Amino acid sequence: MELYKESSISCTSAAEHYLIEKMNEIRIFSPATVANVSCGFDVMGFCLDTVGDEMVIRKIDKKGIFITKIEGFDLPLETKANVAGVSALAMYDAINVDYGFEIEIYKNIKPGSGIGSSAASAVGSVFGMNELIGRPYNKTQLTEFAIKGEALASKCEHADNLAPALFGGFTLVKSVSPLKVLELPTPKDLYATIIHPQIEIKTSESRGLLPKQIDLSDAITQWANLGSFVHALHTSDYALIQSALKDVIVEPYRSKLIPLFTEAKSAALDAGALGCGISGSGPSIFSLSKGLDVANNVKASLENVYMDLVIDYDIHVSKINTEGIKIIS
Amino acid sequence: MELYKESSISCTSAAEHYLIEKMNEIRIFSPATVANVSCGFDVMGFCLDTVGDEMVIRKIDKKGIFITKIEGFDLPLETKANVAGVSALAMYDAINVDYGFEIEIYKNIKPGSGIGSSAASAVGSVFGMNELIGRPYNKTQLTEFAIKGEALASKCEHADNLAPALFGGFTLVKSVSPLKVLELPTPKDLYATIIHPQIEIKTSESRGLLPKQIDLSDAITQWANLGSFVHALHTSDYALIQSALKDVIVEPYRSKLIPLFTEAKSAALDAGALGCGISGSGPSIFSLSKGLDVANNVKASLENVYMDLVIDYDIHVSKINTEGIKIIS
Repeated sequence: MELYKESSISCTSAAEHYLIEKMNEIRIFSPATVANVSCGFDVMGFCLDTVGDEMVIRKIDKKGIFITKIEGFDLPLETKANVAGVSALAMYDAINVDYGFEIEIYKNIKPGSGIGSSAASAVGSVFGMNELIGRPYNKTQLTEFAIKGEALASKCEHADNLAPALFGGFTLVKSVSPLKVLELPTPKDLYATIIHPQIEIKTSESRGLLPKQIDLSDAITQWANLGSFVHALHTSDYALIQSALKDVIVEPYRSKLIPLFTEAKSAALDAGALGCGISGSGPSIFSLSKGLDVANNVKASLENVYMDLVIDYDIHVSKINTEGIKIIS
Repeated sequence: MELYKESSISCTSAAEHYLIEKMNEIRIFSPATVANVSCGFDVMGFCLDTVGDEMVIRKIDKKGIFITKIEGFDLPLETKANVAGVSALAMYDAINVDYGFEIEIYKNIKPGSGIGSSAASAVGSVFGMNELIGRPYNKTQLTEFAIKGEALASKCEHADNLAPALFGGFTLVKSVSPLKVLELPTPKDLYATIIHPQIEIKTSESRGLLPKQIDLSDAITQWANLGSFVHALHTSDYALIQSALKDVIVEPYRSKLIPLFTEAKSAALDAGALGCGISGSGPSIFSLSKGLDVANNVKASLENVYMDLVIDYDIHVSKINTEGIKIIS
């Protein structure tokens, strides 16, 4: 029985492999992500379900990487000036093949919104290429390629948006060099509410705001919270998630850049959110809630805060996407 | 069936309660503990099995707290000058009874050795008293009382040795005010090797060595490691325990106070330890290993390092004590 099962799995894989080898074009959904997650600056992230880009990756006879179409936002088509192109090139240099790839990007995640716009592009191209050539690389290796693209956008190599986009769920990037990504469990009732006040903050500028040194006592508070948060994810302890979702390091600096941040955070917590903080380097604000109803209440409260403001906003409610990036067709 | 089960538990509790009420004297084992654990400065700790103090707590007619005997080391009998006395007084003030308690301390843990000597005394008195009066307090509440005693020794209120002594296993003190202790899982093959080079370092002096500010980049490394370590405990991932057991914050400062620390650490790692670092504020050095055999190899290697040195040492191999403080008789 066991042998039959193994043999059956093996047949499926071979068939799948054959299909992939025959496939010349793939359409993927590359999700938005929330990095930092209050207590996990630079290391933690989670993946969203209802927001993301679509990309088409196509095998072509001509050697090289070519971005042939970008819809949604005005981004460079030049391969070396586009994060999707740069990560694709990093992988292309490694695979040494006599054909090339075309990339089309249908962008829904606004660049500079703080929910992993560049990461979605960076992982999309390498994920799609990997599928078309028979999956020689695992997700950690794909993250390595994508880091090269992400570096173009944020001016430093980090993986806190890339990892959740590729792996799904909550991830902790233990280290970038060597790259070690941990997949953390996702409590099943967690939902995110994300509001994006439509001002642009560049990751590189936002990083410049941070001090080079911090108080040891604050650092201790932060790592106690992060350790507690990891424990809370493992034990689905929502009360502990609530008390651990604090940021004493970065939020005091970066929140100043976000209009009505304090009011928004208060409104989210009053509406029942477990926690609320800056998504990535902002200006998006994320909340985590227990249950879809609470997440929707948080959405309504946040809308009340920003309704009267002159600037526009986007707002999303999403379950945590435990699958990550995926093939659509 | 469920009802019967509940009723049965209830009967046992009542009988136990009756026995405790009749009990006037109790002998306990109060274990040594390792705080900080490399990546968890000020928040993490674990409990040892083979090293600890014994204490006798006795209900007496005379009101007050009286330390009547201390064997093993020269420590003050005056209640307010002894950590066991101070924590006992904190609890005594809260219970308002018309009798008192005598405390005898049979000390095996050398004060200033860095394996929770003061914590063992501080938790021992309150744990024993709580047993004698019918357990009105839970372990978190006992930790609160014990903090008052610990503060006498270390000049600040912290619980990173108290919590593992009371709860057993690995603990994470999320916060001291309000006190929140998390009980982390203990991978079953973990063993500790502890060497105590016999020089004394006072916790209060050792804390003075630390900088008030640290690099943000180092703090990120540390919290990535702590988050990873918590995940590793949950998943019994020994390779991850190994790569997370690093201390980029405190060890560079405090290790200078410990003779042959660098050589000892190298020897422990060469002998197969997953990690090695300073226990608490030192001078004891802890190693964690997978399996008793490796822990014994680490012991032999550490002995080789200190054998030729003029100062003496104590060395212990211990499984992680998941029970914590306990009644002997």
